[in-house]
Amino acid sequence: MAERESQIVLGIDPDPASLWPAPRGGEPPNAADPPETAAAGAVLAHCRALIDAAGPACVAVKPQLARFEALGEPGRAVLGAVCEHARAAGLLVIADGKRGDIDVTAGAYAASLFAGMETPFGHIAGLGADLVTVNPLMGRDAIAPFLEQARAAGAGVLLLVRTSNPGAADVEDLTLQDGGTVWERTAALVAELGAEGVGEAGISDVGAVMGATAPWHLQRARALMPNAAFLLPGIGAQGGRVEEQRAAFEPGPAGGLVSASRSIAGAHEARGGDPAVAARAEAERLREAAWALCGVR
Amino acid sequence: MAERESQIVLGIDPDPASLWPAPRGGEPPNAADPPETAAAGAVLAHCRALIDAAGPACVAVKPQLARFEALGEPGRAVLGAVCEHARAAGLLVIADGKRGDIDVTAGAYAASLFAGMETPFGHIAGLGADLVTVNPLMGRDAIAPFLEQARAAGAGVLLLVRTSNPGAADVEDLTLQDGGTVWERTAALVAELGAEGVGEAGISDVGAVMGATAPWHLQRARALMPNAAFLLPGIGAQGGRVEEQRAAFEPGPAGGLVSASRSIAGAHEARGGDPAVAARAEAERLREAAWALCGVR
Repeated sequence: MAERESQIVLGIDPDPASLWPAPRGGEPPNAADPPETAAAGAVLAHCRALIDAAGPACVAVKPQLARFEALGEPGRAVLGAVCEHARAAGLLVIADGKRGDIDVTAGAYAASLFAGMETPFGHIAGLGADLVTVNPLMGRDAIAPFLEQARAAGAGVLLLVRTSNPGAADVEDLTLQDGGTVWERTAALVAELGAEGVGEAGISDVGAVMGATAPWHLQRARALMPNAAFLLPGIGAQGGRVEEQRAAFEPGPAGGLVSASRSIAGAHEARGGDPAVAARAEAERLREAAWALCGVR
Repeated sequence: MAERESQIVLGIDPDPASLWPAPRGGEPPNAADPPETAAAGAVLAHCRALIDAAGPACVAVKPQLARFEALGEPGRAVLGAVCEHARAAGLLVIADGKRGDIDVTAGAYAASLFAGMETPFGHIAGLGADLVTVNPLMGRDAIAPFLEQARAAGAGVLLLVRTSNPGAADVEDLTLQDGGTVWERTAALVAELGAEGVGEAGISDVGAVMGATAPWHLQRARALMPNAAFLLPGIGAQGGRVEEQRAAFEPGPAGGLVSASRSIAGAHEARGGDPAVAARAEAERLREAAWALCGVR
């Protein structure tokens, strides 16, 4: 972050129906390809172009696993190639799958997302993610396998604490008998599990997803999770504004990861012009706005 | 269920390190295959043999998506082939992925699991699942896309309500200020969302995952969700017993889906003998025990 002066996370959320025009010099689609193959090729070209365009203003990419799964059989290979392209561009990878399950199942998800697993057939590679989003509904023993494998890989986890959607009110915002809300209890879990994972920069390897659309929660969240990195989705298309996220950066510049997807990839729809140029400009605008929030410290 | 006199769900949870011995007459593994290819072939052969052996005593299979994702690039093709094999054997498919995310992302997961999606490149097929497990932490708008696509496909959803693991106590069991617990509130959501989806047999297309390891919750759950099918994981290896699940069947034989994974696939470890014979015997034992709970009605 310090090197790039950026806290911007490039959300990668490719809809086959609204990809950028094929890059010049790219391979033309083969009309004889089955839909899965044609879509996979086009999505990969789009994602690479997006990373090439906006990546230099960002510190990480956040592929939305759902979009790659919806591609069918080639989905995982496309996801792997996108992550590889991002790493080659010096970007961290945040695998956004919001997984959550018990013991051996959570272990299998974690293997798939982090370092892979040993089998009698040899080592099967994982995605090599630096951070993954985890759903904490099922509690500590469902989170533990993710955290164990993250730590073994020098990676981290981001628990869903208070998300950016209206439905967050249905369960996350429920008030508890002992005081506080469900999300505040989850926040306490983030602090508890992350206590032994605080690094030199004062940031823990257990972070939190805190929707950017409800910034009035941020100060309370920061009090409950003083060392957590906050992934802040919902900037732009969902209505969140960078300038409202100041509390995220209290522990330092690495306290907040400002995530934007549609507002970068679709910047040309508002700004006009070339998608790549518009994406870079929007990512750069977000980068400056976020860095200014903590740069004065 | 009536035709098969079975409520047993065959959990498919293949660990590459503990597969059944290769079936006679099957293709021998090619030593030159990369680990992913070799593991994928062996896992597929194992799953097919498991379905052939235990399937006749069951009404559905429940593939654990994590296990297929951990296989890397070939994982989705193996999962698809397993589901196809199960359908050919007359079994329903319950895709156990516990997904949960907002709007377009939830829609992409749902497309991937149900009927697929139209793209400018043609139709990309989905998994064709009959039921999928959904994590309700993010609330109504995160559940809606799953339910819409389920209904369009003649399928259904199963929300995580009270799971079978110890960590269920951490969030699901928290007591609310207005009375009741988080899981009871989720149960009310199941009843609300499922109210317009109750079919002729009195069972709704919105069901609930109710861990079989805490049967003392079942009567309360049934009162809150009178028309929901309960998926009951945790029978066998996790300590749940079929005989304790009676309340699940109050609306009729289709009120409970008794799920067992390791206790069927690993039955030979306790019973000895051929894995396929032991699996069939254990599935048949569970089938009889469950059917007896509702057959007297």
